[in-house]
Amino acid sequence: MQTLSEHGCFGGTQGFYKHDSAVIGAPMKFGVYVPPQAKNGPVPVLYYLAGLTCTEETFAIKAGAQRVAAELGLMLVTPDTSPRDTGIEGADAAWDFGHGAGFYLDATQSPWSARFRMESWVTRELRELVAAHFPARDDRVGLFGHSMGGHGALTLALRHPGRYQSVSAFAPIAAPSRCPWGEKAFTGYLGSNRADWAAHDATELIAAGGRLPPLLIDQGLADKFLAEQLHPHLFEVACAQAGQPLTLRRHEGYDHGYYFIATFVEDHLRHHAATLLA
Amino acid sequence: MQTLSEHGCFGGTQGFYKHDSAVIGAPMKFGVYVPPQAKNGPVPVLYYLAGLTCTEETFAIKAGAQRVAAELGLMLVTPDTSPRDTGIEGADAAWDFGHGAGFYLDATQSPWSARFRMESWVTRELRELVAAHFPARDDRVGLFGHSMGGHGALTLALRHPGRYQSVSAFAPIAAPSRCPWGEKAFTGYLGSNRADWAAHDATELIAAGGRLPPLLIDQGLADKFLAEQLHPHLFEVACAQAGQPLTLRRHEGYDHGYYFIATFVEDHLRHHAATLLA
Repeated sequence: MQTLSEHGCFGGTQGFYKHDSAVIGAPMKFGVYVPPQAKNGPVPVLYYLAGLTCTEETFAIKAGAQRVAAELGLMLVTPDTSPRDTGIEGADAAWDFGHGAGFYLDATQSPWSARFRMESWVTRELRELVAAHFPARDDRVGLFGHSMGGHGALTLALRHPGRYQSVSAFAPIAAPSRCPWGEKAFTGYLGSNRADWAAHDATELIAAGGRLPPLLIDQGLADKFLAEQLHPHLFEVACAQAGQPLTLRRHEGYDHGYYFIATFVEDHLRHHAATLLA
Repeated sequence: MQTLSEHGCFGGTQGFYKHDSAVIGAPMKFGVYVPPQAKNGPVPVLYYLAGLTCTEETFAIKAGAQRVAAELGLMLVTPDTSPRDTGIEGADAAWDFGHGAGFYLDATQSPWSARFRMESWVTRELRELVAAHFPARDDRVGLFGHSMGGHGALTLALRHPGRYQSVSAFAPIAAPSRCPWGEKAFTGYLGSNRADWAAHDATELIAAGGRLPPLLIDQGLADKFLAEQLHPHLFEVACAQAGQPLTLRRHEGYDHGYYFIATFVEDHLRHHAATLLA
């Protein structure tokens, strides 16, 4: 593991790191905020999965979450959103597929399947790396994310029961099988058989019996992607029918960006802390 | 004035705007955070001057100050750091001179003097524009900034007595006549006669009798520019000799970047609010 940079931040350290990922077969970057409480022993960890076009730096720079993490004693881990510089033809052709758009799944379709294995990296390899190199409690781990990363947070937690004790999302792609972003990504990474998509669709997973800890989701009503891409109402109906506890807050005047996330990130950290620090 | 974008943020609005500046003779950009209290009437205004290579967006994106501004009821204004697209030969040749490096002064030397008039723009034209278009109290205005913008905050407040009721800085270029950044900028914008530089050097201005409201300055001790470029100790001595009240805080483990600024920005807003909201 290579340290790219480290910065004093609210009494702790915001760092950026790189390692040679075995499951992806290439170097991968991630950020870690270590709160001051970690000087006294391992602390719970909260993973944040970012959205399309973002990197391991986006949340660390824009969300203002370190202040709250430093108060509560939570470590924050921010993985990059895809493998980079894969050399795969077409990986840079669009902002919503390929580099910067890994959708937090293991691709099954060539040529993507060789490198785009974000699910294995995030849930297993990166987690082991963080547990080995940072003062992290591997038995107290939360997961949240934004947009494509909100999809990632919901689906990875549903697909790995018990691995994440707390879950939340900002403006998640909540029913990816039924929106253009999801259809494009699933077709490319998983193939055109829609039956294979359900295992990576939060709404379908809930309908099929998947269960999560009580969820917090925030959604801005001035979000230009809300109507066509996000579909939180479909996820909401599935949760209601299944008895999955969900607090879905809709906020007038807030868009899809990080000014929205910064406004509500404290609520999310407190939501996770209520479980991870209990 | 043209609205570039507006975003809901902590109950208020973070916006970015452009106007045709008469004093600069070209379009100029700036950001404004309007806190929720402005719905009930004009609020005090705090101007933030950013550092080398930054834009009107940098502080808005990275500092996390809107949360505190929304609590206190302060408007935040973030001017761009120089004229842009001037077409002046050499304006893009370096990161510490020309575009993105206006040093908050009115250049006297050709070819810079035609466009690089940041002092007139920030202290007069932009201020009038903000007072005309936003719910801003023009009688309660504070000024702060970072690095080159810390130099700007100290010198503009010293050069315009009474225009700014509260002043602070992060890691300011505190004695620009005696560091490479300042020597390069002053030579280019003001000419090679060092006697002309003193009127734009915070340490010299204090020594010459200039006075400010009680100052707050934060400086990181892991700042790679501290030894060669910033010289807060020279400013500190000048203030002590002149009886200028100064709280200069030195912080172990903090560097020159926005993780440092984000950590201490709440203290700065409260410093300004103590005067502006008194």
